[in-house]
Formats: sequence, C-alpha cells, structure tokens
Amino acid sequence: MSGPSGVGKTSIIHSMLDRLGAAFSVSATTRPQSDKERHGVDYFFISKDEFQRWVDAGRFLEYAQVFGRNWYGTPRDAVEEQLGQGKVVVLDIDVQGAAQVKRSMPDAFFIFILPPSDAELLRRLRDRGRDDADSIERRHAEARKEIGFAHESGVYDAFVVNDDLARATNEVESLVRARIASGPASIASRRR
Amino acid sequence: MSGPSGVGKTSIIHSMLDRLGAAFSVSATTRPQSDKERHGVDYFFISKDEFQRWVDAGRFLEYAQVFGRNWYGTPRDAVEEQLGQGKVVVLDIDVQGAAQVKRSMPDAFFIFILPPSDAELLRRLRDRGRDDADSIERRHAEARKEIGFAHESGVYDAFVVNDDLARATNEVESLVRARIASGPASIASRRR
Repeated sequence: MSGPSGVGKTSIIHSMLDRLGAAFSVSATTRPQSDKERHGVDYFFISKDEFQRWVDAGRFLEYAQVFGRNWYGTPRDAVEEQLGQGKVVVLDIDVQGAAQVKRSMPDAFFIFILPPSDAELLRRLRDRGRDDADSIERRHAEARKEIGFAHESGVYDAFVVNDDLARATNEVESLVRARIASGPASIASRRR
Repeated sequence: MSGPSGVGKTSIIHSMLDRLGAAFSVSATTRPQSDKERHGVDYFFISKDEFQRWVDAGRFLEYAQVFGRNWYGTPRDAVEEQLGQGKVVVLDIDVQGAAQVKRSMPDAFFIFILPPSDAELLRRLRDRGRDDADSIERRHAEARKEIGFAHESGVYDAFVVNDDLARATNEVESLVRARIASGPASIASRRR
C-alpha cells in the first residue's frame, strides 16, 4: 500500500491488519528511533553499515533512500515466511519500492491511497501539527511528485480516494478480499 | 463508470448489471443508429432539435458533445425513478459528464477503469479491428487526454486497472458493494 504523507494510509493499514488478520511487514531503517517507536515493531533500527551488509547479502525485497538522507528497506525473509504461512502481508511502501517489489512479485496487489484534492492534502498535513512550515511544504511537494509517479508507473492495480476514512477503509478491504477470491491472474493477461 | 475506449469498460458494466441486479442508464444521442443498436435499449436516438429541447427543459443530468460532432446526454427522469426504487443505476459516462453528475449527485460513486499501460491500451484499440488507423490514433490520443483529466478532476472515488478482466470485474463489484454497505459519507468528510 502506498500513498503520500497525510493521506490516512496508516489508519487504513491498521484496519486491514485487524479485519484481514494480515501481517505487517516491518521495515528496516537507518533513521533515528523516536521515543514512541519500538525496535522490531515499528521498524528495525539499524546502522548504515548494517544496512549496507543487508543490501549486499540480498536481504531486501526493496530498499530506497528517502529525502536523500535515510535508508528504508523491506526484509525479504519475514515477508516470504508469512506468505508461506498463507497470510496476507501488508507493506507500507513508496512508489519506487513498490516498483521494485513488483519485479520480484508481479502478482502482489498494489493499492495507492489518494487525497480527495491537492488542497485537502495540504490541509491534512497542516492539521497533523507534527511538522514546521518548511517540512509541510517539502512533504506537500513530495506528495504531489509521488502521486504523479504513481499514475505513470504502471505499478498499481487500484487507486482509492480517501475522502471519508470509513468508506475508504471498506473499499480497500473489499478490494483485497476480491483479489484473494480471484486467485492468480489468468494466463491471457500475462502476455505483457 | 468511466474509462477510455478499449479499456474493457463495457464488459465490466455488463457484469455489474448481472451481479448487482443494477439498472443501466440509457443515454440519449444525436449520432446515427447502427444496425445492431436498438432505440431505448442501447441509446435513445434523437435529432439535434429534440436534444436541444431536452437540454432547455432541464431533462439531462449531464450532456456533452463528443469529438466535436455528436451530442450525448443522461436523461434525469429514468435515473431518479430507478434510484427511487432502491436500485443501483450504472452510468457509462466520460470525465466531463461525471463532473456534471457529481455536482447534482455528490454522493454518487465514481469509478474510472484504467488500462495497465499506454502500450497495452493501443494494442487493445488495434485488436478490436473496429477502426481504421486514423480512428485508432484519434481514440488513443483522446484516451490519454481523458486519463489525465480523470486524475486531475477530483471526481473519482477509485481507479481500477483492468489488467485481467475477471479480476478487475471482481474488484469493481466489491467496491460498489463496499460503498453500498458504507452508506452516505460521514459528516466529517463533507466539509469540502
């Protein structure tokens, strides 16, 4: 699942974990751990050297540098283990990462959460009260760029607009259930 | 429901009518009737004068001129009557028309069907064998423009990629059912 900061993606993911009994893929990151965050639950907090060793060992399903500073990656082992147990695994991932995952897992289901409008996205970023004006401006610019990339990427199976959180959550849940029920893609569609 | 020519929208709509017991909104048009088409089933085929009288009488929920020649419109009466009977009513409509419908029916559910890629869209337009090279080129250019408009319009609640028809149909059905189950938007989301 992808979507810009402030779009409500985290809330939707939490509902998915509850409703679908899904597993959340915990990412590894080189960014500092905040007081509220727990190692192994919110992220695996590792050093840049450690991160590089994981890259070299092919331990990431995808990884990327965000805002040109910190590294984030999805450890491959945990995802494959939980898929092997028949679980739905949810990744909170950016467009660049989703494109990487699609290369190794073309049958994964890719959903992008959209804000109802650009003005509403800016309002939500401000309302979070979490960032200063510069950060809000940077996040807003990043969000616009990410939405453009998402549309052009050809990665996503569906885009859901979060105008109303309860509705958007129901829509995402129903899409995931429909995909599970549909099974793998028919052979005719694999010619691409 | 909207989507460019060749994206498989008509197939998805037919499945929706079957699966949801939905009613199809029959459009009025000034374009010539083909041999295969039936008046009142595929379209209401009316003259330009008649069309103008319907416009003046406010009988259209939306109307537009397509490719600068023919007029198409959604008669308001039939839609409101079927909604009044508790039916789901499906409109096959372009972005311009969807934006008009949204103004009078903000709680309608707007889905846009996307091709998996631009190359695949062009391939499907060619494979239909219905148009000459010029028409294909024009439809392809129109499709690209319409997809761009759709993303920027802020009209759509969801975008579903038709990579695999069976999957996309299941996804659209599940979205409509989720929206029906969700009921009207919560008050918090109506501040826009």
